[in-house]
Amino acid sequence: MKIGIPDMRAVTMEQAGLPTLVPAATTLLKTLDTVLEGWATAAGAASMIMPPLLPVAALARLDFFDNFPHQALLVSPLDMTKQLTSEALAYASETLEPASLALPSAACFAVYLYHRERSLPDKTTVTVLGRCFRREERYEDLRRLLGFHMREIVALGTPEFVQDHLRRFGDRILAFAAALDLPIRKEAATDPFYDRGGPRALLQKLAPVKHELLVEDLAVASLNTHRNFFGQRCAITLAGTGRPLFTGCVAFGLERWLAVLLARFGSWEAAVEAVRSASAQVGAAPP
Amino acid sequence: MKIGIPDMRAVTMEQAGLPTLVPAATTLLKTLDTVLEGWATAAGAASMIMPPLLPVAALARLDFFDNFPHQALLVSPLDMTKQLTSEALAYASETLEPASLALPSAACFAVYLYHRERSLPDKTTVTVLGRCFRREERYEDLRRLLGFHMREIVALGTPEFVQDHLRRFGDRILAFAAALDLPIRKEAATDPFYDRGGPRALLQKLAPVKHELLVEDLAVASLNTHRNFFGQRCAITLAGTGRPLFTGCVAFGLERWLAVLLARFGSWEAAVEAVRSASAQVGAAPP
Repeated sequence: MKIGIPDMRAVTMEQAGLPTLVPAATTLLKTLDTVLEGWATAAGAASMIMPPLLPVAALARLDFFDNFPHQALLVSPLDMTKQLTSEALAYASETLEPASLALPSAACFAVYLYHRERSLPDKTTVTVLGRCFRREERYEDLRRLLGFHMREIVALGTPEFVQDHLRRFGDRILAFAAALDLPIRKEAATDPFYDRGGPRALLQKLAPVKHELLVEDLAVASLNTHRNFFGQRCAITLAGTGRPLFTGCVAFGLERWLAVLLARFGSWEAAVEAVRSASAQVGAAPP
Repeated sequence: MKIGIPDMRAVTMEQAGLPTLVPAATTLLKTLDTVLEGWATAAGAASMIMPPLLPVAALARLDFFDNFPHQALLVSPLDMTKQLTSEALAYASETLEPASLALPSAACFAVYLYHRERSLPDKTTVTVLGRCFRREERYEDLRRLLGFHMREIVALGTPEFVQDHLRRFGDRILAFAAALDLPIRKEAATDPFYDRGGPRALLQKLAPVKHELLVEDLAVASLNTHRNFFGQRCAITLAGTGRPLFTGCVAFGLERWLAVLLARFGSWEAAVEAVRSASAQVGAAPP
């Protein structure tokens, strides 16, 4: 076995980055997600359920395998023409069929793929909750997982709308964290999509495309602008212009929120109460 | 490409059994799931979020790869020592690392694995919502999918408790369907776990271990008894006896409910209203 996919005989599911959430933690995750989805729908977002797997061909079109090959997790059926054994602890590569599907590493990819070749009005907003997957070199309680929940609020339209979306939701997150008395800070970050040298990397130095919201050293949310990257690659145009639209997303790593809320409030139950109270304080009106 | 995993260049996500749910369908799925989870928690069930992937070694212990090898979907990282191309439409087997993880085909496997080597009191009930995956020879709108949502209400304890659990929730489903004016019938079915000849198959003829609730020819829910199969394989004992406990589960295929509700009520919105009204009629008290 290689780094990142541990020998499942020797490690627990927690050590493999695949924890189970006990009932009180489940309640907290659902309570928090309902708050975040409420912010999105109050701002006019369409709440949708996206496919849990995406085609390799579609992700390749988004440069996913160029940028994140080490994180990728591919999905294959068993090759039924091969001799298989029920004693298997892992299936060898040669017993697998080719992988034409992959697990998503972010929830918003499916949104751009869904809108492929469509023309959309400015101020289109979509919110999705996805189970996302990233192979990491090591996993850490709820802070760094192989499989985790990501709530995203995605903006599609003019550059101005996207910037406004990120500013408004960034402010909302800061206000929510303040109501939780959770020390949070916003920092410019490096988006791996643009971190490959050349003109894009230069452009990023001039105007950051990613900000992270951090509690201590843990990014619990991020604000991302993609310029017209997904608009171009997915041929999504801004209605009336025929041109690729701009996109941006606000992303929340829900298990990371659970980790910082548990540390802050000492119990899942106290954290649930705190989230409810902070949500009422911040309000659900469009930010 | 072989049967069941279509060439993703030639088919839509819908044809591949991976549809997107539009906002009104998303609302219906969530409304329905809230009703079903409410039945479970009102009956004392612990609501939990389980890992989205399971170890091959653990599923092998449950005979999964003996019984359902053709349905299995394995998960592998890319082998970074191999030459990879971003133009890939599918990754060849030899570019994949061995698969030590798999996508679950049912939501309840994770429950038995979580409780492995524990001693539990009688009348332990757990409810989970899982995204489940089955490779099929063909996919059909929301009726037969590669990836779907399964809500389960799992009973662990004495044989009498398990039987009582299945009877009560079976009656509740019939009452709910009646309130929806949805023609439903309960039929004995064959559980592939016991459908392999020998003494278990004989036993099943004497006492069915699986009942399905069907609307026309579509099974929208099932009532399953596993006797002490999972208790034995996972070493889960009934407190005070030291013996493997019995298990059973009530399983709902949520997208199938969406399909029959849309056909019955003509629109997602009307179906949402009908589910709310039927839920109020049937009540949330323990069945």
